[in-house]
Amino acid sequence: MSGTLYGVGLGPGAPDLITLRAARLIEGAAVVAYPALAGGDSLARSIAADLISPDAVEIVMDVPMTVARAPAQAAYDKGAADIAAVLDSGRDVVCLCEGDPFFYGSFMYLFARLSPDYEVQVVPGVTSITACAAVAGMPLAARNERLTVLPGPLPEAELRARIDGAESVVIMKIGRHMPKIRGVIAALGLTEHAVYVERATLPQEVVLPLKDAPETAPYFSIILLTKGADPWL
Amino acid sequence: MSGTLYGVGLGPGAPDLITLRAARLIEGAAVVAYPALAGGDSLARSIAADLISPDAVEIVMDVPMTVARAPAQAAYDKGAADIAAVLDSGRDVVCLCEGDPFFYGSFMYLFARLSPDYEVQVVPGVTSITACAAVAGMPLAARNERLTVLPGPLPEAELRARIDGAESVVIMKIGRHMPKIRGVIAALGLTEHAVYVERATLPQEVVLPLKDAPETAPYFSIILLTKGADPWL
Repeated sequence: MSGTLYGVGLGPGAPDLITLRAARLIEGAAVVAYPALAGGDSLARSIAADLISPDAVEIVMDVPMTVARAPAQAAYDKGAADIAAVLDSGRDVVCLCEGDPFFYGSFMYLFARLSPDYEVQVVPGVTSITACAAVAGMPLAARNERLTVLPGPLPEAELRARIDGAESVVIMKIGRHMPKIRGVIAALGLTEHAVYVERATLPQEVVLPLKDAPETAPYFSIILLTKGADPWL
Repeated sequence: MSGTLYGVGLGPGAPDLITLRAARLIEGAAVVAYPALAGGDSLARSIAADLISPDAVEIVMDVPMTVARAPAQAAYDKGAADIAAVLDSGRDVVCLCEGDPFFYGSFMYLFARLSPDYEVQVVPGVTSITACAAVAGMPLAARNERLTVLPGPLPEAELRARIDGAESVVIMKIGRHMPKIRGVIAALGLTEHAVYVERATLPQEVVLPLKDAPETAPYFSIILLTKGADPWL
């Protein structure tokens, strides 16, 4: 009888934005797994740190930050093999995932590799987009409004076309793409409607009007753009 | 010194998908507020029921289900006035919100009415869209993929145009719009990529291929449509 793999969303960063279900699973886990930047820290582990048993076995997946696919694929291949070995022994594995496992999360690579052969359960988590909306005091969407989520690395022309036709827009993974994104938003005359949020709900959180945002942003930053949700007053 | 209004996301329905922060706030609340269908039940209250103190004062906002704006606006005007009276007395109010307060949530109407004059804090919650993805085993978006969220009541032509140009699509608030939405997806040849989810994470949860979905769906149902996220194998 094989064990079960749990893909557990941890939310945007504040440890108390973990769900009750996720907390219970992490506290009870004999084996946890999580990604880490190769040779560096794991944000996922840091969010869940207070819940992990000192006796838990930890499977660390060193994922290289590179545009090339092969090194990351190899890291997930190895992680999946390590997890499979534990599941084969009949034990469960709790995989820690920043945000939500299926919302721009790397857990889906493990899901693709392991769900054909093992029981996998996904515990959804609070995403960065609603966390950013909360700390910015900016409702994302109401009633029949549309919401579009765009990754910052998209080409300039595509960003422009997608933002132009949308109501509420969230742009994720800003990083070094900030000058391009800021230029597109300015060209559309929407700068005054845009807010920049960095590391939402963490102690280093930053919330600024886009015009005051830094030229280079961290990977975990977001721009919220609404043309003014109708508050129904 | 006025009290603070907390808009607290409860997640999609399962009580253990409430966050630790939300649970602590609800357990400690002397006054809770929540919307209810006029004369009927409150889903929000039912999700949080085990956490509400028997001594808590409860402010119920009876919101009529109608297409006309005025009756709902009047209900939020009255709810805001009731909450303001408590805040003016120096006590806090914890407002219970299904899902996330700023993601198609009615809390934004209270936020618009009360945030100019009172301290308001929003606690983000797990949204129905990632909960549906989790129970359906369908990753929503990866890497540089775009995600579009569309409300089901949108006109047919707009739904068609928005779905046709998108990668991953979530259609919310299906209800009586099911035949229209199913027709649009079929005309685009995408039926085999679509999954229907009803009341995700609740005991009555239903997950079906769209072709097997019922002709009339409840309001709290969703269609997930992905043209096949690349699992990076």
